[in-house]
Order: sequence, then C-alpha cells, then structure tokens
Amino acid sequence: MIVVVTPNPAVDVTYRVAEQRIGETQRVLDVARRPGGKGLNVGRVLDTTGTGTHAVLPLGGAAGRWIAEALDALGLAHTDVAIGGETRTTVTVVDDLAHPTMLGEPGPELGAEEWDAVTAAVTALLPGADALVVSGSLPRATDPGVVARWVAAARHHGVPSVVDCSGDALLAAASAGATVCKPNREELLDATGADDERSGARLLLERGATVVVVSRGSDGIAAHTADRVLDVPAVPGVSGNPTGAGDAATAGLVGALVGALDRALDRALDRATDGGPGSTAVLDDAVLLHALRSAAAHGAAAVLRPVAGEVDPADVARFLHPDHDHADTDRTRTPA
Amino acid sequence: MIVVVTPNPAVDVTYRVAEQRIGETQRVLDVARRPGGKGLNVGRVLDTTGTGTHAVLPLGGAAGRWIAEALDALGLAHTDVAIGGETRTTVTVVDDLAHPTMLGEPGPELGAEEWDAVTAAVTALLPGADALVVSGSLPRATDPGVVARWVAAARHHGVPSVVDCSGDALLAAASAGATVCKPNREELLDATGADDERSGARLLLERGATVVVVSRGSDGIAAHTADRVLDVPAVPGVSGNPTGAGDAATAGLVGALVGALDRALDRALDRATDGGPGSTAVLDDAVLLHALRSAAAHGAAAVLRPVAGEVDPADVARFLHPDHDHADTDRTRTPA
Repeated sequence: MIVVVTPNPAVDVTYRVAEQRIGETQRVLDVARRPGGKGLNVGRVLDTTGTGTHAVLPLGGAAGRWIAEALDALGLAHTDVAIGGETRTTVTVVDDLAHPTMLGEPGPELGAEEWDAVTAAVTALLPGADALVVSGSLPRATDPGVVARWVAAARHHGVPSVVDCSGDALLAAASAGATVCKPNREELLDATGADDERSGARLLLERGATVVVVSRGSDGIAAHTADRVLDVPAVPGVSGNPTGAGDAATAGLVGALVGALDRALDRALDRATDGGPGSTAVLDDAVLLHALRSAAAHGAAAVLRPVAGEVDPADVARFLHPDHDHADTDRTRTPA
Repeated sequence: MIVVVTPNPAVDVTYRVAEQRIGETQRVLDVARRPGGKGLNVGRVLDTTGTGTHAVLPLGGAAGRWIAEALDALGLAHTDVAIGGETRTTVTVVDDLAHPTMLGEPGPELGAEEWDAVTAAVTALLPGADALVVSGSLPRATDPGVVARWVAAARHHGVPSVVDCSGDALLAAASAGATVCKPNREELLDATGADDERSGARLLLERGATVVVVSRGSDGIAAHTADRVLDVPAVPGVSGNPTGAGDAATAGLVGALVGALDRALDRALDRATDGGPGSTAVLDDAVLLHALRSAAAHGAAAVLRPVAGEVDPADVARFLHPDHDHADTDRTRTPA
C-alpha cells in the first residue's frame, strides 16, 4: 500500500459554456466535479493500475465533505484530517473556441495542530506502507518543514518517499533525505535557482535526495543521481489533454519503483549500512530505467484521457511495451 | 410569519480577480459564498427588517448542505426538502475593470415525489402564515403547475400569496388566483406575449390575479388592478449594485401588505364572499400605494449594498419617509 499525501486538495469543477465572454451572464451547459489536487490524481492512477493506495488529506467545510464522499464513491481508501477552513475549489471554464480559463481559490490556511494531525495520520500508516508519496502545492502560509517531517518519518520506518512539490517544500524534502524528488523542469530551476537541469538536480542531491527525477513533458523524463543521468524520451505521437500527465507519470514511477524495491529489499537490507531503502544500492540503472519508462507510459496514457487522474491500463501497457527497442532511444550518461 | 418558497436555490459564489482574462490561469484574490436564489434574498431582507419568515427549499448534495448551514448561521428558519440532485452553484467573477461575468449552473431536475414533498412542506406551514411568497426560477423541466398548487393551498388556508416567477409559472400562478403577481416589466411582457405593460397585466388579472405589481428598476413600480394603475417612482439619485434590488422590492411590498392585511383582515372577512384576503376589498388604494412605496424604498436600499439579499433598515426608513411629499409624484390612473 502506498500512502499518498495531498496537502492542498481541491474540488475541481469544469464548466462548459458555448463561448467564453467577459462581462456577460453565461449558461453553463455541462458541469463536471471531481476530487482534485496532484496527490489525488496520483492515487487514482495507481489505483486504476492495481496498486493499492491510502490517501491522507486535510479536508474542511462542504467542499471537504464533497471530496470525502467522492473518494468513497471511487472506492479509494482515505484518512481525512478535519480542518477549520473550507477546502478550496478550482473552476475551469471551457468552450470549443478558446483556451480554458482557470480560476483557483487560495484555499484554507492550516494551524500547527492541524498539520500535527496530518503528520500523525501519515505516521500511523507508514508501518504497513510500501512507499510515501507527497504531491502538490502546500496551502498558503505553510511551513515547508511539514514535508520534511513526513519524509523523516518515512525514513524512520524504512519506507521510500517520493516528493513532487515545488519551492521551499522541495528543498526541505531533499534535505530530509527523500528517496526521490520529482519536480518538473520548471519547478526544479525555480526551487533551486539553478540555470540548468543538471545543476539543479545536483543541488537537491547534495541536500540529501537519493534520486532526482525531472519530467519535461514532450521532452521526456530523466533520473539524476550523483554520478549519472538516465534519460527516457516521451512516448511519440501522443496528443490530447496534458493536465495531470505529470501526476500520472509520478504514479507510473512510484508503482514501478515499489515493485522493484519489494524484490530488491531483502538483498538491499543485507548490505545497506544506513538509509535502508533510501540507499542508491537498490536503485540500479535497470530499476531506474524501468521506472522512467513506466512514468513516460503513464504520462502518455493520461494525455489521451479528457480529465486528470485517469489512465486506461491498456494504453499504459501499449506505451510500455511498444514494438521499438528501448535501447535505441534511452540513454545513460555520465556527466562531466 | 411569511412562508417563502425558493424553488431553485443556489450557492452564489463571487470570485474577485485582478483582471478577467479568457484562456489563462487566474488566482482568486477573494472568495465570497452566500446562500442565493431570489426567495432567499426576499427572506433575508424581510428578516433584516423584522418580519419573521420561514424558508422552504429543495436542497441536495454538498451545495445543499452548505446552504442549510449558512441559513442556520444567519438564524433564518427553514424547512429543507431533501432531493437527489446537487443544488446549483453560480459563480460571478469580478474585477475593477470590466462588467462581472456570471456562470450559472443548470441546477438539478426534481422528480414528482420531490415536488410533492415541497408542496407538503408549504402546506404544513400555511395554517400559521401571514403570507406565502414564491420567488425565483423553477428548475429545468419543472411542471409550472407546482406553483399553482402552492397558490391554491394558500387560498385554501386564507393566506395571501405573492408570486415573483417568470414564464409559464407566472401564468399558472395568475390562473390559480395569486393575490399578487410581481414580475418585472420584461418578465411580464415575455410571459404574456403582450406588447405593453397594461395589456400584459390585464392578461394576468383576467386569469385570476388580484393585483399585478410590475417593477421597472429606475422607472419605478406600478400596481395594476382591473380598473386602475397606481404608479410610484423609483427613489431618485441612488446608484450602486442593482443585483437583488427586485427581491428587496418584493420583500418591501410583502412586508407592507401583510401589515395592512393584518389590520384589514377582520373587516374584510365580514364582507368577502369568496377568496378571503385575496379579495381586492382589502387592497384599497392607500394600502397599495404604501406597499409600492415600501417596495421602492427597499429596492433603493438594496442598491446601496454590495451584495444581494441585504438592506440597511436605516436606508429603508430614509427612503420611505423623505422630505418630499409623495403626492407630488405618485399617480393613480384609470386606464381607458
């Protein structure tokens, strides 16, 4: 079971209108509501592909209750931490003529006791967990140290952690020894202030991350370790809705790593002197390449779906085992 | 106590953004949520001005629960009829640069049993009621006959009814013998197909309405009976937010009529042969003019408030008792 933390969940509402117009009254032709936030997207994709998850998320108000009921309806296990604020809503307005317009509520601020309750919920689940995933933005005014506490708790329980956050939360996760930091390229450069991807990844590795996986959309995905870079291209010829593709990629990455780690764990525990499954010993090139290919296949499968948080497992399988030989395109480099 | 039915309530959400732009991601700077729908606006204004109300409304889903809790927080009495659908939300996007953009969800459709439950809730409250108000649109695919049933139930219990609906629901209310039909001018012409206000009003009167009150925004408000038209101008020099001004006017009208009817009821019951308080006997010119002035004052007071469903009673009093002599501007005409 994979524990997936969504620090700032949202009710994602999509309104279809005939034509977006500013300053007018518009009849909404179709309404879609779904539980959102990057962690919930990751969890839904993992669940679709047969990997059990348990979501941990702070929820408040009517929007929070709606999310809890929607997760029940989807059959996803979740531990809700009750908060005083109202869970945020995002409204996306779409038509067939213009780009979507997205209106994002600022979301609630959580008190220290509320974050303590989230940490307690995470910690209670870790003893039975195969991995911890933390994904998505933090609510306003949140101490990024909360992410470090979850990563440290995972290390304490010998559970690998994958963190897809941005800004100071990403830096804090690296410093706490996250097994995998998984920003997209823009988030990596933004958080580290680096000018290029390799420099940014090195900064996170030096802080303590075991691997830094960088997704670049149609430019593929890479895994950086202290001494090498593994590169896997995006699945070619796929177009559609990129929203949530990065989250599906995280799900593909985590699912593949957990499978490999399960198999490698017994061997690794024999030789790892510290850090347990955080040791790079278990993350050899074959495992990482497989995980990157799984991430790319899941990301491409998500692009084919109209909404975030969904993949068709048949698409994943098709993209993961195409007719071409991976060796033609995948590269392992040893940076200068 | 005034029973106020809101057939299609809504969560009214207002998002303030820096600048409305189509096709972009916009941070919402400020979120306001309020229970909406014309009937709830009428009820809140009546409550603010000291007239007790009891709201009846179908509510479903998380949005419905939010409205129920918001009404509790406002201290408004309400009977909720549980429905299977999700109560609608309206999103209004505002900035300081352009007109507001309003996105209105279609709202749920109610089944026959759900409407029966609304009718039962209304009927149960009528024995203790001073008036029945039905205000606002009907949900999609609703038989307008439901409004006629509520009006008929009110007549059966000797309770005057005021109906601010549009389209076929307005016609049905008139045919059922509503004491007051209160469309705005556009709604009147639209529902009746008439070319002018007097002709439209006559069509509703001929169907069975006792009085037709037509609001015209800054062009004042009029009461039509079979043989005369009473005209009261809008309060001059008031500008602001017209949203909900018509609902405040309805509240002002109803509050004044109920007070007058209370006083007149005993006398009227002696001479009315049928229709009880629906008889025009109790709605003499003095009562109607007072009610129209109250409506105009409430409407103007609502314009001064930033959101619908609110008036400052001090503004109402100021507009109701200005220094000028009403007789200078109010007119009673006997149409040709």
